[in-house]
Amino acid sequence: MRPRRWTTRKSVRVYKTPIFDLHRHQRTHPERPPHDFFVLDVPDWVNIVPLTSKDEVIMVRQFRHGIEGFTLEIPGGMIDPDDRHPRAAARREMVEETGYDSDKITPLGRVHPNPAIQGNYCHSFLARDVYQTAKPNLDSNEETQVVNVPLEKIGGLIASGKITHALVIVAFSFLEVCGPPRERRRMRSG
Amino acid sequence: MRPRRWTTRKSVRVYKTPIFDLHRHQRTHPERPPHDFFVLDVPDWVNIVPLTSKDEVIMVRQFRHGIEGFTLEIPGGMIDPDDRHPRAAARREMVEETGYDSDKITPLGRVHPNPAIQGNYCHSFLARDVYQTAKPNLDSNEETQVVNVPLEKIGGLIASGKITHALVIVAFSFLEVCGPPRERRRMRSG
Repeated sequence: MRPRRWTTRKSVRVYKTPIFDLHRHQRTHPERPPHDFFVLDVPDWVNIVPLTSKDEVIMVRQFRHGIEGFTLEIPGGMIDPDDRHPRAAARREMVEETGYDSDKITPLGRVHPNPAIQGNYCHSFLARDVYQTAKPNLDSNEETQVVNVPLEKIGGLIASGKITHALVIVAFSFLEVCGPPRERRRMRSG
Repeated sequence: MRPRRWTTRKSVRVYKTPIFDLHRHQRTHPERPPHDFFVLDVPDWVNIVPLTSKDEVIMVRQFRHGIEGFTLEIPGGMIDPDDRHPRAAARREMVEETGYDSDKITPLGRVHPNPAIQGNYCHSFLARDVYQTAKPNLDSNEETQVVNVPLEKIGGLIASGKITHALVIVAFSFLEVCGPPRERRRMRSG
């Protein structure tokens, strides 16, 4: 059976937060009774793999409020209205969170973080030959520790559960498919 | 600078939906003013790669309300209170959504879908030698089309943007690292 589209009859924003809004959509279907579906209205996100000329990934350790614990991640965040392009947002987040910069930034791919309850994309990028340009400049509620991780160790950190953020794993998965700068299979040896 | 933990002073459930609740946590930090953080309270999720003895993946095409469009996914969903184990939930979702079953189900890994705003895990599994046992038995608001996809085509479908669900890509990424049953590198040739 080919699934059919639901049509929105009425939408209400039922709650507003600084980083997403919650909407209730009343939707109808050719053969089913009307139903309410709840969706987060959230801007597109970005993340970026900052890679040095020595094949080290510049990562950040930070406290995450969803899990009430610490994660090891690549830089990332929301696209701001001032960002001209997802790439610009990714570069901004990288510089803010790590103090590293690069002008060799290429797209890796984009995914739906959660198509069931969010409409947004997360766009992933690779920054090659990153160099330290400043100290991290963080939002008032952000606090990160910059950690240099050899690219060849990433596979092991994912397999052992040290890197747990789905969108970070997606970015590394894209990187592996696209091929890191020097040696395509190097990440797998970790 | 080593990031420090925020401590919860007060939590309020500000909105309740059938699939998640929205909480506001007032949290404090050793060196920052108190701040409100919004977190989705949501059960752990599961997904599962159903693989036939001929290395075909049993996938589902369905309408997703977050993106208001159709996706190509592996089976998955929330762990119900009646599920004894994440593995049991994954098997139940596979049978419900595809009509295929297997008693050879092994864990692939688990991730945080979004540690910034959710505390839950998504647990991924592999089901080997799946066989058709029934027609799909779906929730009243679910409607899926079962699609058999050769495992070797998966890499191409991800690279070309036909598979966009981050947690589905994570499951295939784990599968590639863990190695599919027969030929470890087969997925990459697609």
